[in-house]
Amino acid sequence: MLVLSLDLGGTKLAYTVMDENGTQFHNGKILLEGRQGTQVGRLITELIDSLLTELSQANKKIDAIGVSVAGIVWHVNKTVWVPKINGWENYPLQQEIEAVAGDIPVILESDRTCYILGERWKGAAQNCHNAIFLAVGTGIGAGILVNGGVLKGTQDIGGAVGWMVLHKPNQIAGDSPTCFFEDYASGTGLKALANLLIANSPQYKGILKEKKESLRTIEIFENFDTDEVASKTLQICIELWGMGIANLVSIFNPEKIILGGGVFGPATRFLPDIKASVSKWAQPYSNRNYSLEISALGKDAGVYGAAYSAIRYLNSKKDVQ
Amino acid sequence: MLVLSLDLGGTKLAYTVMDENGTQFHNGKILLEGRQGTQVGRLITELIDSLLTELSQANKKIDAIGVSVAGIVWHVNKTVWVPKINGWENYPLQQEIEAVAGDIPVILESDRTCYILGERWKGAAQNCHNAIFLAVGTGIGAGILVNGGVLKGTQDIGGAVGWMVLHKPNQIAGDSPTCFFEDYASGTGLKALANLLIANSPQYKGILKEKKESLRTIEIFENFDTDEVASKTLQICIELWGMGIANLVSIFNPEKIILGGGVFGPATRFLPDIKASVSKWAQPYSNRNYSLEISALGKDAGVYGAAYSAIRYLNSKKDVQ
Repeated sequence: MLVLSLDLGGTKLAYTVMDENGTQFHNGKILLEGRQGTQVGRLITELIDSLLTELSQANKKIDAIGVSVAGIVWHVNKTVWVPKINGWENYPLQQEIEAVAGDIPVILESDRTCYILGERWKGAAQNCHNAIFLAVGTGIGAGILVNGGVLKGTQDIGGAVGWMVLHKPNQIAGDSPTCFFEDYASGTGLKALANLLIANSPQYKGILKEKKESLRTIEIFENFDTDEVASKTLQICIELWGMGIANLVSIFNPEKIILGGGVFGPATRFLPDIKASVSKWAQPYSNRNYSLEISALGKDAGVYGAAYSAIRYLNSKKDVQ
Repeated sequence: MLVLSLDLGGTKLAYTVMDENGTQFHNGKILLEGRQGTQVGRLITELIDSLLTELSQANKKIDAIGVSVAGIVWHVNKTVWVPKINGWENYPLQQEIEAVAGDIPVILESDRTCYILGERWKGAAQNCHNAIFLAVGTGIGAGILVNGGVLKGTQDIGGAVGWMVLHKPNQIAGDSPTCFFEDYASGTGLKALANLLIANSPQYKGILKEKKESLRTIEIFENFDTDEVASKTLQICIELWGMGIANLVSIFNPEKIILGGGVFGPATRFLPDIKASVSKWAQPYSNRNYSLEISALGKDAGVYGAAYSAIRYLNSKKDVQ
């Protein structure tokens, strides 16, 4: 069995060919370089077309194509929404890929679904039936495994944990005393939080002061040990991660929560602090019985998950025959 | 097919005999009247013994016994934890019932699992695959259906949504700016909230002032229209219910959220206000696509769910044979 797996992010398209054991062939990456709307669709279909031709010449047959999409896959109308690509509010990606795929089945899944499926297959969630991949990047979303199946919800939009309403940190409380989880605990949120702390501290003269909109998330991590705003930002964020993850522990009583996305990454060094923060709030019994880990697949979680989606699809067809 | 269904609460034991269509025979209720420890076990086994004898004399055969337990059912070691019954931290209820049940299979489930299964079978969640029963009584717990199966978690303690950490209402914020969902939004919590508001309002001379520990939850509802503390308590609680339910809507993207337990009941009149409160925070797309309803089975949700657990068990055995 051989599947073609693609991972469409907001800025790049990664691809690989995998067999049922997860062995990779032909992997690569293409930057989107500002492409929009149908230009991105064309990039994907041309890539698939050329890979299929190349593999066919080598006498290799692709059995299915799996695609991880950085957004929402609306399974009912077979379109996708990728917030970071202009013109992809309701994009007919499935139809476009099927037009070049011929008889090969095409399986599209949201990135968060792929992340937890990838970790379930070849990463940190192997043998888990109840596990959560918390993807902390531009926003925050979760791929959630319940009883071995992925929680997609009624309209495929389940796992939107970035929308959890939490107590807003006192240091930045303005008109509203509440915030959404991703407002200050995502990569984008960390920058907003640092800039709010700077705005509230006229006496601060540190290295982040004049960055404003140009501040990059990584600079907050790089200056944690020496800069008061960077340090305070991450301390507050550890509290927010603690609350958000505690809520997931109490609700799901999972075996594992796996942290991934661009922020984990550099936030990995705070894993023990985050775990301690979670334990202040999580249901005590569930808190003693889950483990908090970093993604084992990292940037490859999407292609592994997309491949596994395709393989699961092929296996389900086999069961029926 | 005929099942015996029991619902063990903190103060009473309800029972019924049901067929596979949900038709009830022989239903009744026994108050626990302060029984503790093994006294409660004896009450249950004597009831089952006498019912089985009576049914047998009428030539009726019970195929399975389902029991809803107001607490946690630890399926691994086959014991239960019922916080409201002394000596039931780790009680061998399954074993005790099996001793009188002979060959009849015995299926124990937590009350929140039974509530959502009951509503799924004969109540407000019929035909739902993703639905939540929010039980608001002494505490707050949820029976959660994901992809048609009940979310129990790894150690059967999933659905502990009363532990969700939320922003504590500003009016009562003390040392901690956060609270757990059930601290002020459960039946017990409503009383605590009213007493805190009274303690913070020295000028208040209303009807609830001198009640203190003797204040009953129902009195807060009864005085909503005329008493400032009762009114404020419920306004704050509507915000808390809004936040808690919004988090569930965003995470699960469910078809329905069903409100039950003793508080719904009297809080039913606030359903439109709660729905409006939820919409301030829930993920907008999921918010437009769920419905908020009151339990259709009310106090019977437990016995229906326990019966359905037993019927599902019998059907699963049939599939295997």
